[in-house]
Amino acid sequence: MLGYFGPAGTFTHQALLTITDEEAMPFASVPEALDAVREGQVDGVVVPIENSVEGGVTATLDKLGNGAPLRIVGEVVIPVEFGLYVREGTQLDDVRNVLTHGHAAAQCRDWLAVMLPEATVVEAGSTAGAAMEVSNPDSRHDAAVCARVAGEMYGLVELVHGIEDNPGAVTRFVHVARPGPLPPRTGADKTTLVAYMREDHSGALLEILEQFAGRGVNLTRIESRPTKTFLGSYCFNIDAEGHLHDKRMAETLMGLHRICREVIFLGSYPRADKQEPTLPRGFDDNAFSQAADWLATLESEQPG
Amino acid sequence: MLGYFGPAGTFTHQALLTITDEEAMPFASVPEALDAVREGQVDGVVVPIENSVEGGVTATLDKLGNGAPLRIVGEVVIPVEFGLYVREGTQLDDVRNVLTHGHAAAQCRDWLAVMLPEATVVEAGSTAGAAMEVSNPDSRHDAAVCARVAGEMYGLVELVHGIEDNPGAVTRFVHVARPGPLPPRTGADKTTLVAYMREDHSGALLEILEQFAGRGVNLTRIESRPTKTFLGSYCFNIDAEGHLHDKRMAETLMGLHRICREVIFLGSYPRADKQEPTLPRGFDDNAFSQAADWLATLESEQPG
Amino acid sequence: MLGYFGPAGTFTHQALLTITDEEAMPFASVPEALDAVREGQVDGVVVPIENSVEGGVTATLDKLGNGAPLRIVGEVVIPVEFGLYVREGTQLDDVRNVLTHGHAAAQCRDWLAVMLPEATVVEAGSTAGAAMEVSNPDSRHDAAVCARVAGEMYGLVELVHGIEDNPGAVTRFVHVARPGPLPPRTGADKTTLVAYMREDHSGALLEILEQFAGRGVNLTRIESRPTKTFLGSYCFNIDAEGHLHDKRMAETLMGLHRICREVIFLGSYPRADKQEPTLPRGFDDNAFSQAADWLATLESEQPG
Amino acid sequence: MLGYFGPAGTFTHQALLTITDEEAMPFASVPEALDAVREGQVDGVVVPIENSVEGGVTATLDKLGNGAPLRIVGEVVIPVEFGLYVREGTQLDDVRNVLTHGHAAAQCRDWLAVMLPEATVVEAGSTAGAAMEVSNPDSRHDAAVCARVAGEMYGLVELVHGIEDNPGAVTRFVHVARPGPLPPRTGADKTTLVAYMREDHSGALLEILEQFAGRGVNLTRIESRPTKTFLGSYCFNIDAEGHLHDKRMAETLMGLHRICREVIFLGSYPRADKQEPTLPRGFDDNAFSQAADWLATLESEQPG
Repeated sequence: MLGYFGPAGTFTHQALLTITDEEAMPFASVPEALDAVREGQVDGVVVPIENSVEGGVTATLDKLGNGAPLRIVGEVVIPVEFGLYVREGTQLDDVRNVLTHGHAAAQCRDWLAVMLPEATVVEAGSTAGAAMEVSNPDSRHDAAVCARVAGEMYGLVELVHGIEDNPGAVTRFVHVARPGPLPPRTGADKTTLVAYMREDHSGALLEILEQFAGRGVNLTRIESRPTKTFLGSYCFNIDAEGHLHDKRMAETLMGLHRICREVIFLGSYPRADKQEPTLPRGFDDNAFSQAADWLATLESEQPG
Repeated sequence: MLGYFGPAGTFTHQALLTITDEEAMPFASVPEALDAVREGQVDGVVVPIENSVEGGVTATLDKLGNGAPLRIVGEVVIPVEFGLYVREGTQLDDVRNVLTHGHAAAQCRDWLAVMLPEATVVEAGSTAGAAMEVSNPDSRHDAAVCARVAGEMYGLVELVHGIEDNPGAVTRFVHVARPGPLPPRTGADKTTLVAYMREDHSGALLEILEQFAGRGVNLTRIESRPTKTFLGSYCFNIDAEGHLHDKRMAETLMGLHRICREVIFLGSYPRADKQEPTLPRGFDDNAFSQAADWLATLESEQPG
Repeated sequence: MLGYFGPAGTFTHQALLTITDEEAMPFASVPEALDAVREGQVDGVVVPIENSVEGGVTATLDKLGNGAPLRIVGEVVIPVEFGLYVREGTQLDDVRNVLTHGHAAAQCRDWLAVMLPEATVVEAGSTAGAAMEVSNPDSRHDAAVCARVAGEMYGLVELVHGIEDNPGAVTRFVHVARPGPLPPRTGADKTTLVAYMREDHSGALLEILEQFAGRGVNLTRIESRPTKTFLGSYCFNIDAEGHLHDKRMAETLMGLHRICREVIFLGSYPRADKQEPTLPRGFDDNAFSQAADWLATLESEQPG
Repeated sequence: MLGYFGPAGTFTHQALLTITDEEAMPFASVPEALDAVREGQVDGVVVPIENSVEGGVTATLDKLGNGAPLRIVGEVVIPVEFGLYVREGTQLDDVRNVLTHGHAAAQCRDWLAVMLPEATVVEAGSTAGAAMEVSNPDSRHDAAVCARVAGEMYGLVELVHGIEDNPGAVTRFVHVARPGPLPPRTGADKTTLVAYMREDHSGALLEILEQFAGRGVNLTRIESRPTKTFLGSYCFNIDAEGHLHDKRMAETLMGLHRICREVIFLGSYPRADKQEPTLPRGFDDNAFSQAADWLATLESEQPG
C-alpha cells in the first residue's frame, strides 16, 4: 500500500492518483509519511518536494536524506489550479459565502474580488475540508475553493476552473520507496542526491559543480540546506539529468564521493516531462565504453 | 525610528536591541516590515534571514530583492537560547504548568521531559505572549519558556537558561534600510546580492561561481530561490566576503552584471564576527591598483 | 628604415615587401634583427614567429620578451610556396642540376623525384643564394628551387610554381617596433604577451587560461617556453583575440598581472586575416560599460 | 641492443650509459633513431626530449607520436656541463688553440674570454669529434671543450670542469621502446601523451587541463605543437604525474579520449627524480576504490 502527505483531496493526493487508484494512507506530515516508509508501514509515499513559486519543501529535503536510506522512484508535476465548487444547482449568482483554506484564498484573491465582490470568504482547515463541508446539503457555505480532486471526491459541481491569480504555478511531487532495484533507465531520467562539503574547504561548491560539468551532466535543481551544525555549514540537495546506469552519472557520483565528506544517493527515476538531455559530444555511454576499450588496448598493445 | 519583525520579546527584538535601545515599531510579518522601510514609515528594520538549523527565511530572501531597492546595512547573529522564566518566588519544584509557543516547546522537548516530567505544556501564540501571561500574578501558568529578552521584559525570574535540546543554534538577522551611502569598509565585510541566470543557459551557476572564484572572493552563503515563473527557473541569493569598495568585489559585481540577466545588489556591511578574509596572493586592493598602473604604462611607454 | 631577418629573397623578405617597398636592412639572425630595433639602428623589423608545420620560431619567442621592451605592430602570413626558377630559355627537360637550400630540397623532395628524376640536387647556403647563382649565365646549375621573391629578384623565369610536397603550409611573420602609440583598434585584432607563472604554483596554467576564458577572450596560439632557470619552469607565449583597447582584454591583462609573477605585453595589432571574434553575450565593450555604469549607480542610489 | 642519437661522446651517449654499458648503436638523427626502434633494428633508443634552456626537442616531440606506436619506458636527466680537456701534460697556460662545436663554444663564451683570452677557438663538427682530434698527439689543437664522457672516451685529461656560463642547465632524455608491458608503477611516475583537440572547439585546451585538474593530476610539461594542417591547429604534448595504473590517471586518460579528437599514449615510466606527487585528499587509489565500492552498494542496497 502507498501513503501520501494528506489529507485526501489535496494536490498531493492528486499526484498520488496519477500513480495508483488503490486505497492509500494519508499522513499528517511529510516526516511522518517518510518514516512510515522507513518502518515498512507502507511501501511508498508521495510527498511534495518543490513548488515553482514557493521553492523547495524543506521538510522533504531535510528528511529524505536523514535516517534509514530512501529512494525516489518517480516524480509527478501537478499544476496548482483551483476551482470554485458548489452543490448541484447552485449558480454563480447564488454564491454568498465561500469556504476555503487561507493559502488558497490568498492565491485566488483577485478572482474572488472581481467575480464575487459581494461574497464572504471563510477560512477552513484545508481546502479538502472546505469541499466536504460544502457537500453537506445543510451547509451554510455555498461554495468551496479547492483542487478538482477535492471537488470530485465530495460530489461537487465545478462552476469555474483555474481561478488562481498566478496561473502556471506547479508543484513537483516525488514517489519515495525503500531501497531496491532502481527504476530502469529510460533515457530521460533524473538523479537526486545530497552532497556534504568537507568543512575545511571554501571552494567546495565550485568543485562539486565541476564534477558534473566535466562529465556533461546538467543540473535541474540545486538547493543549499544547513547541515544544522553551525551557521555557514551547508549541504547541497541536487537533481541532475541522467540515471545511475548512465556512465557519465556513475563517474560523476564516484567523483563526488571522493571529494565530498558524504554523498547521499536518493535515487534515479524517469523524468515527468520525458525530456531527454542534449549531451555534448563525448558524454554518451558509447564514448565512455570506447574510452575504456582504448585504455585496455594500451596495456595489451604488442610491438607493431 | 527603526522597526522589526515582532512582537516584542522575540529573538528578532533581541537582535534589534543590539542596534538601538530607542523605541522601535514591531511588524506582524517580514513583508510588512520591509515594505514599511520602502514606504518611509520607518528608517530601517531588523528581520531574520537565516537560521543555522532551519535554513534561509524565504519571506526575507524573496521580499528583499523584490520591490523598491533596499540595502542591508548590518547583521546580527543571536544564539537561539531558551530559558525557563517564572514569577519571583517560584521554585523549579513548583512548576506544574508551562506556557510557550509550539516551536519553542518542540526545541526544548527533551529538557522538559527530563526536568519537568510532571508538568503540562500549554501552547501560547508566541513565546513573548507566554512571558506576558506568566507575569500576571493571577495566571494559572507557573512558567514560560521564552527568550531572555521576553523574560526580562515582563519582569520574570530566570530559573534555568539554555534549556534548548540543540545548543549552538543561531539565527542571523539583517538590518535593512533604504539606499544611501554604504557603511564604510571595515576590512571584514559581507556583500549580499541576488543573481538571476539567463534562462537559456544551463551552466549558469558554474559561471556565476567562477566570477567570484576567479577574483578571490569567497562565498559564505548561497541559496537558490525560484523566480516564480516556471519550475526549474532559479535565482541565487548570495553572501560573499568583501565590500563593494574592495576592488575584487567591484570587479566581481561587474562581471556578474555582464553574464547574468539581472543582479540585485543588497548591500555591503560589516560582518558580525569581524573575521577578515584570507585573500590569495594577488587579490587585495594593492594588486588591483598595481595591475591598473601597469596597464596604463603600456599605453604611454616610450621607446627605451 | 625597416629591417628583416635576411637575406633578401627569402619568405621573410617577401613578408617585409607587403609592408614597405622602401629599402630595408637584412640581418643575419633574429636576435640581431630585434636588437637592432632596440638600439635604434632601424625603426622596426620583420621576423618569423611561427610556421604551420615547424611550429614556433624559438629565437623570436625567446628574444621578443627578453631585453628592452618591444611591440608587435602588425603580422603577415605568407604561404610557403616554392617554385622552380631558371634562366630565360631553359626548358624543364633541360634541367640536369638543381641548386637550393637543404630545407627547401627536403620540402620539395617528392616533386623533384617524380618530375626531375634524373636531376642532381645540390645544396646552397640559402634559396636566395641559389637563385643568385643560377642567374649567372655561366653557372653550371640549371635551376633554383626558391621563393618567387628570389626568382624575381634575380630575373629568373618561373618554370613551375607550388612544387612543395606539403601545400598549404604558411609562415607567420611579425612586424616589431619600439614601444609607442598602439596601432588603432580595428575590431579584428590580436594581442601577444608572455606570462610567467609563479614558481610555487602547479595549477598556474589553468588559472592563466581561466583569466582569458572568464572574460570571453579566445586564444589563437599558446606555447610554453622554458624560463631557462630549471627544468619544469615555463613561461607561456600567448596570442589572444582582441586589442588592449577592448575592455575584456584590458581586464584580462590586469587579471594576469595579479596572478602571474610577470606579464610581458608584446603588442596589440590588426589580424592578418581580418577575422572578427565571435563574442559570447556580455563580453563586448558595451557590456563592460553598462556594468561600470550600474556599479556607479549602486553608490549614488538615493532612497526611492 | 639499444641505440641512441649519436655520435658517441655526446650528452645523449652519456644518458645512454646510465642505462646500459653494453654496446649501442648511434644514429645520425632523432627520426632515424626512433624509426630504428619501430622497425626492430634496435630494442630501444635514447633521445633528448627537452632542455632547460632551449626547450622541447621538436624532432623528438613530433616523431614520437607519428608512426607506429612507441612507448617511453624511462627518463634520464643529465646536467649540461662542459669541461676543458687536454692531452696528458698540457697545462692551462699552454692552451693556445681550443677546438669545439659552435653550440658549446657559445655556451662557454664568457669562461673562455676570461680564462683563455689569448686562445683561438676553432669549430669542429661535434664536441666528441673535437675530443677525438685533440687526443691525437700530433694535433695542432691543444684542448677540446666537450662533455666529460667524450673526454674520457678519448683518454683526455680534464683540466677544468663546469666551464659553461649558464650552470644548472640540464637536458632530459627518454628511453623509447616498442609497446609491451608497462614499467611497473613505482609511486613516482610520469605519463607522457599527445592530445589532439577537436578542430571546431576553441576552449579545448582549458577542457583538456580540467580533465587533469579535476582528478588531482598535476602536469610537469606541456608543449603545443602544430598539427601541420593549418596555422592555429595545435596538439599538446604533455607530461603528467602518475602512472596509467594509478586510477586517477586511467580516468583522466579516458576523459581525454572522450573529449579529444585523438589521444596518443606515449608511456608511463619512473621519474628520474623519484619525487612522489602530493595528492589532494580524495585522489589516491583508495579513494577511487572506495567510490567504486560505494557505487556498487547503491545498486544492491536492500530495504533496511
